[in-house]
Amino acid sequence: MTVQPSPTAHTQKPLILVTNDDGITSLGIRTLVELMQNLGDVVVVAPNRPQSGMGHAITIGEPLRLYSTEIFENVDEYECSGTPADCVKLAKHYVLQKRAPDLVVSGINHGSNSSISVLYSGTMSAAIEAAIEGIPAIGFSLCDYREEADFSHVHEWVLAITRMAMEKGIPKGVALNVNIPARSEEPIRGIKVCKQAHAKWQEKFDYRKDPYGRGYFWMAGEFINYDHDKEDTDEWALKNNYVSVVPCQYDLTSYAELQNIGSWPL
Amino acid sequence: MTVQPSPTAHTQKPLILVTNDDGITSLGIRTLVELMQNLGDVVVVAPNRPQSGMGHAITIGEPLRLYSTEIFENVDEYECSGTPADCVKLAKHYVLQKRAPDLVVSGINHGSNSSISVLYSGTMSAAIEAAIEGIPAIGFSLCDYREEADFSHVHEWVLAITRMAMEKGIPKGVALNVNIPARSEEPIRGIKVCKQAHAKWQEKFDYRKDPYGRGYFWMAGEFINYDHDKEDTDEWALKNNYVSVVPCQYDLTSYAELQNIGSWPL
Repeated sequence: MTVQPSPTAHTQKPLILVTNDDGITSLGIRTLVELMQNLGDVVVVAPNRPQSGMGHAITIGEPLRLYSTEIFENVDEYECSGTPADCVKLAKHYVLQKRAPDLVVSGINHGSNSSISVLYSGTMSAAIEAAIEGIPAIGFSLCDYREEADFSHVHEWVLAITRMAMEKGIPKGVALNVNIPARSEEPIRGIKVCKQAHAKWQEKFDYRKDPYGRGYFWMAGEFINYDHDKEDTDEWALKNNYVSVVPCQYDLTSYAELQNIGSWPL
Repeated sequence: MTVQPSPTAHTQKPLILVTNDDGITSLGIRTLVELMQNLGDVVVVAPNRPQSGMGHAITIGEPLRLYSTEIFENVDEYECSGTPADCVKLAKHYVLQKRAPDLVVSGINHGSNSSISVLYSGTMSAAIEAAIEGIPAIGFSLCDYREEADFSHVHEWVLAITRMAMEKGIPKGVALNVNIPARSEEPIRGIKVCKQAHAKWQEKFDYRKDPYGRGYFWMAGEFINYDHDKEDTDEWALKNNYVSVVPCQYDLTSYAELQNIGSWPL
């Protein structure tokens, strides 16, 4: 049977597309769908399996599958064989071809996507893909990577940021990267709009042998924050129990170095 | 047999790591390996299959394989089951663990990675991963996506840019995105250091049925350049038969919008 474009596109309420990178059955997307139902009509197009670490991958050279699902209540929902960025493209150009969404939200990711992790994040690539399409977009992540992550404290923060973004409008060319501290005994202190901390993952590869004697590697690593004392960064905000909001752009040009490199006698 | 770290790391010449996203058997990486052998000792760690469009994906949740190969002459070479970014990480932290490369070059990609394509590009994600590791890095792409792309005119441009980058040094936090026009009757006019054009891919999904009657989609699309009249962009340079060089950064923070969004009453 042919998957049909969403009928939800015909209502008058704000149309909110929800996607993620942990897959359509994860707890994080369920939380986000339920929250967004307070703010508009929800359509879900999300990966049919975990896609963590997929960065801004898209599916070239092989076809995509799209199937209707019945996981949520009162939601048009589809699972896709592709990446998070594929989901946004297929949603915009097929599922919601008659009306573009008013907002795209991605997540809630099980695990932080702060600082350098934004580059590896499928959650944020979906939001950035929406921004490329000219649609306001927010990626939400919780600093708790467990499958059974505790989302019970995120509701007010997700709703406050989303409502404000819908009211004020997110500037063109920008998507918001929102990270929420893991639940702890300390209540969250508020929201900080901040910059991406200068940090990296220092990899350590764990070499093992499979039962057939062939070697393989597990990528593991340690997070190194070069900006640990800088109060205007997302890492500082999260460490101090604030929700971090970083406006992210997809123009990668280093304007600071254009003149320098432009002066090379090439 | 356990794959051994590279012995090449012990020589005195510049150590150049070559990778790509089209896979270790592609013509583009062969061209780049041969060119880099003029400039230093070459080690190759590249994907064992095409990884186009992989963006900044990394392999989380499954192991990586690494095998020695014998494709090139006088080169330590390895094929990896992972993404281009994985190749750089595994090269830095395992293959070249005793001496970090002096330069990472990625490509030469079969097909343009100018303007918005930089985000989807596995070629550029490898270069950006190297920049994150603090290693000077350049991604090279040819605006000819054919498997049998004609690389015969690229030599002087690849060598000139690489030599200059080794002499002047690439600033920290930046990788160069170099695109070279396809071979034509007109000779290339020179090199332009420029910015990423504001552009996007306007997708159009081609819906088909497989032999079992199940639907699937091919992603196809049209390139839209909003900056078509701007002479300081990579698209303008390429269209006018210049090699384009864009310095790219991995800090995605939109500094222009920090204050605006920071003023929201959250």
